[in-house]
Amino acid sequence: MSITLEQAEQAIAAAKEKASNIDAKMNIAIVDAGANLVAFARMDGAWLGSLDISIKKAKTARFFDMNTGIVGSLSQPGGSLYNIEHSNGGLITFPGGIPIKNKSGEIIGAIGVSGSTVENDHEVAEAGAKTF
Amino acid sequence: MSITLEQAEQAIAAAKEKASNIDAKMNIAIVDAGANLVAFARMDGAWLGSLDISIKKAKTARFFDMNTGIVGSLSQPGGSLYNIEHSNGGLITFPGGIPIKNKSGEIIGAIGVSGSTVENDHEVAEAGAKTF
Amino acid sequence: MSITLEQAEQAIAAAKEKASNIDAKMNIAIVDAGANLVAFARMDGAWLGSLDISIKKAKTARFFDMNTGIVGSLSQPGGSLYNIEHSNGGLITFPGGIPIKNKSGEIIGAIGVSGSTVENDHEVAEAGAKTF
Amino acid sequence: MSITLEQAEQAIAAAKEKASNIDAKMNIAIVDAGANLVAFARMDGAWLGSLDISIKKAKTARFFDMNTGIVGSLSQPGGSLYNIEHSNGGLITFPGGIPIKNKSGEIIGAIGVSGSTVENDHEVAEAGAKTF
Repeated sequence: MSITLEQAEQAIAAAKEKASNIDAKMNIAIVDAGANLVAFARMDGAWLGSLDISIKKAKTARFFDMNTGIVGSLSQPGGSLYNIEHSNGGLITFPGGIPIKNKSGEIIGAIGVSGSTVENDHEVAEAGAKTF
Repeated sequence: MSITLEQAEQAIAAAKEKASNIDAKMNIAIVDAGANLVAFARMDGAWLGSLDISIKKAKTARFFDMNTGIVGSLSQPGGSLYNIEHSNGGLITFPGGIPIKNKSGEIIGAIGVSGSTVENDHEVAEAGAKTF
Repeated sequence: MSITLEQAEQAIAAAKEKASNIDAKMNIAIVDAGANLVAFARMDGAWLGSLDISIKKAKTARFFDMNTGIVGSLSQPGGSLYNIEHSNGGLITFPGGIPIKNKSGEIIGAIGVSGSTVENDHEVAEAGAKTF
Repeated sequence: MSITLEQAEQAIAAAKEKASNIDAKMNIAIVDAGANLVAFARMDGAWLGSLDISIKKAKTARFFDMNTGIVGSLSQPGGSLYNIEHSNGGLITFPGGIPIKNKSGEIIGAIGVSGSTVENDHEVAEAGAKTF
């Protein structure tokens, strides 16, 4: 089971609406169950550097089936996964990436958001992930 | 002047409609005037390998402000731009990438389409590029 | 639907047997429906340079859901997909990569074989792909 | 002296059995004395992101002929090998990679395991490395 393009576009629409509500300009990426990009949107004026970060957050969330911030809490100096970011062509392990589940609870993809504080990034990603 | 997200989404919608009309499953990428991704959509069942190709076509079209197929006609063995594909992290120089212009004729971005024959790819890209 | 590890190991076993029969030393890679590696085996004495080639052949076959040699027939100078090899971090488009289908005909992964002539590579890949 | 494919497959089988016993889904990679992949297996449902990590752990263990966790203890901020992970196309320096020795104590390859806690990863790698 993998996310469809229609579902991915719904998730992006929900994330964009939340971003507008909190006055943030976001890059929003959706990957499928195979961690491959399905849909992407960069809001006007959003940071260019956040383009790659949003895609890497979505991939990281699907690579390990958990919120990116959890990976980041383990990859700190002295942590059990220190410098895991060097794998897979580069991971992003701070908040803003969240797995997307279908109604049965099966993971069908992930969303990655970047463009503001990590709190805002996470909030917008959650709005997208919660669509289903 | 650069393409807005709203314009990019309109171009993707037009390209998706054309793709459906000719019964093709496409990857569709839109880059802005800076050759950075603005919006992307992978239609359900589209080739995985066309994801990267669609993005590279859009970038190539904006990198040189011409249809990708024109670059490809110059990059053949013996041609003046032989193996230009080695630059910029990899170009794609066969048809399916087209610059997008605004009403004044100014280039504001580009569209790249991949997922079928190069003729179909080009036709769908044209449907997206002509939106404005 | 994606290939299981057990199926992938059966395909590798069948390919190894065929390789031994024709006195060839092969690298054999199996990817899943998402084009991610599931299983790999390098026979003793097989060319080191064929390691990466076998993996890229398997990925290429799944990226475009066709035998790698078909892609290669289109990517020649003057062909419609000239230099497509520059996409996806490097494709291999000569024979030896074949999609793997289940009994319903659905593509569930791919096999890539490298280590001998392309005819031998293809023959060994076919032995692996035909397991199901 | 380098590990044979038969030995590598035995090590993977032992690692898979240990993984099943502790109810973990692992990616398991074996490299030879030249740090090149010999055999690989991704158990059904194992994290996608652990594919690359398991291979990098095996390489790292052979690159320096020590358990990956030892490298990681030296690569922390202020440590003598701070950020060594940037070398060799990316190292993974937390536990789960172990050199493989033959009966004479000579290093003939390495195993890398990823898919669970680093303690589990190390335990499964040890089961594979101890086969001989």
